[in-house]
Amino acid sequence: MKGGAAIGIFDSGIGGLTVAREIAARLPHETLIYLGDTARLPYGSKSAETVIKYAVRNVSFLKKHELKAIVVACNTASAVVLPALREIVDIPVLGVIEPGAQAAVAATRDGTIGIIGQPGTIRSGRYETAVLQRLPNATVYSLATPLLVPLAEEGWLGTEVSRLVLKEYLAPLMEREIDTLVLGCTHYPLFKPEIAKLCADTFKLDVVLVDSAVSITTELEQHLAMLVQLNETGAPRHRFFATDSAETFRQVGAAFWGGEFPQVLHIDL
Amino acid sequence: MKGGAAIGIFDSGIGGLTVAREIAARLPHETLIYLGDTARLPYGSKSAETVIKYAVRNVSFLKKHELKAIVVACNTASAVVLPALREIVDIPVLGVIEPGAQAAVAATRDGTIGIIGQPGTIRSGRYETAVLQRLPNATVYSLATPLLVPLAEEGWLGTEVSRLVLKEYLAPLMEREIDTLVLGCTHYPLFKPEIAKLCADTFKLDVVLVDSAVSITTELEQHLAMLVQLNETGAPRHRFFATDSAETFRQVGAAFWGGEFPQVLHIDL
Repeated sequence: MKGGAAIGIFDSGIGGLTVAREIAARLPHETLIYLGDTARLPYGSKSAETVIKYAVRNVSFLKKHELKAIVVACNTASAVVLPALREIVDIPVLGVIEPGAQAAVAATRDGTIGIIGQPGTIRSGRYETAVLQRLPNATVYSLATPLLVPLAEEGWLGTEVSRLVLKEYLAPLMEREIDTLVLGCTHYPLFKPEIAKLCADTFKLDVVLVDSAVSITTELEQHLAMLVQLNETGAPRHRFFATDSAETFRQVGAAFWGGEFPQVLHIDL
Repeated sequence: MKGGAAIGIFDSGIGGLTVAREIAARLPHETLIYLGDTARLPYGSKSAETVIKYAVRNVSFLKKHELKAIVVACNTASAVVLPALREIVDIPVLGVIEPGAQAAVAATRDGTIGIIGQPGTIRSGRYETAVLQRLPNATVYSLATPLLVPLAEEGWLGTEVSRLVLKEYLAPLMEREIDTLVLGCTHYPLFKPEIAKLCADTFKLDVVLVDSAVSITTELEQHLAMLVQLNETGAPRHRFFATDSAETFRQVGAAFWGGEFPQVLHIDL
């Protein structure tokens, strides 16, 4: 019966749909209840206190559904809200930071790791701590790259502007010859081809790019398998909620989700 | 006694400080009570319903002070919230759209006017309507230029990136040979020198740039003078409130306000 419960996911907006999409693809029998707090986005530029307040409100809403796990898809929220959320629910709450750090440690050849994220994520120092707990000899360089979110949302992917911005942002990390780069924001995987090309062609470096949507899905799968809660059959019945306009969520989100939404409802929180 | 009351101003964040700064410079004996709703910024990408909800909450807070007028410094809010606000207060509520349209109509030589703004402002069509009410023969071209806000906030002013973005955004307006351009967002005046250079050097056009901070200050001054409420003497005692971190407001806002703040308080709305 417990296996029939859904997986709750929340994010500041539509970026977390890259995480939801990865989960839906790899765990195709699980139902997802997704909440995008689009009325208050972005979280990445806001203080920890404010982000915690919003996250608690999001989870109070998600809890109204029968859930077996909650995924915090937003990197900034994952960095600061997990302890507060674990106080108000008795199911597993998973964030993207730990799996991302785990994947970086597994990927690095000489322990020189770069992290890019939104200001709130970088300010928290959580990725750095999570890497160093696993690999105390690692050298970690963290950098806030805030402009990548609006560039992705406004469709400037693959342009001369995005190339210049990425080059300017990444130069200091590349000078330190990182061999692994954590894309510490749900929007950044959209720049993967451009970053890979810059690393190889401009900076002449072989850099592994870590996408936290992939690593958290692995963690979630292991977690559910361990608890014997993985659904092996049955069609999912995903539901999507947005705190700002459902119509805008449907339009802008389609590119992140990779297709039409079965249903998006507006919810006032 | 009424002249001793303050002027309330609110904005989605720090951008409205360009308006507050202009008012403080030209009406140096008026006290300003400024509220930046930094916990919910930006407004420009959100729906009218959500922006109205936030604006009503902001004004309910400002009303706790003794006020003689309220200035809506945010263009998106000015476009959609004035009727709702005029229902809940009995003092004048001024937005930036009407004065900006008025200044554009006064400046244009042949009636071909461009408007740039955030998506919510452009979507509302309010600038266009306000221009056409005053100059029915005008030809108005409106364009959403969302990336300019993060570029300004992240300090990319005067870079190759900002030049490329501005050139790409403005090209379709310049092809139509506008002679007046309304900078319909509080952040855009920071790009004034770059836009002026692009118009003259790249597009070879003589374009008047309309800054709504200047035009709303003129309107406010006339309004207060007419009601015999202008303060001619006395030192102002400005107060600043932010719904997210007061510290961040102080740091990022200093460039917009043009100096140190006397005091910034966090307020939870």
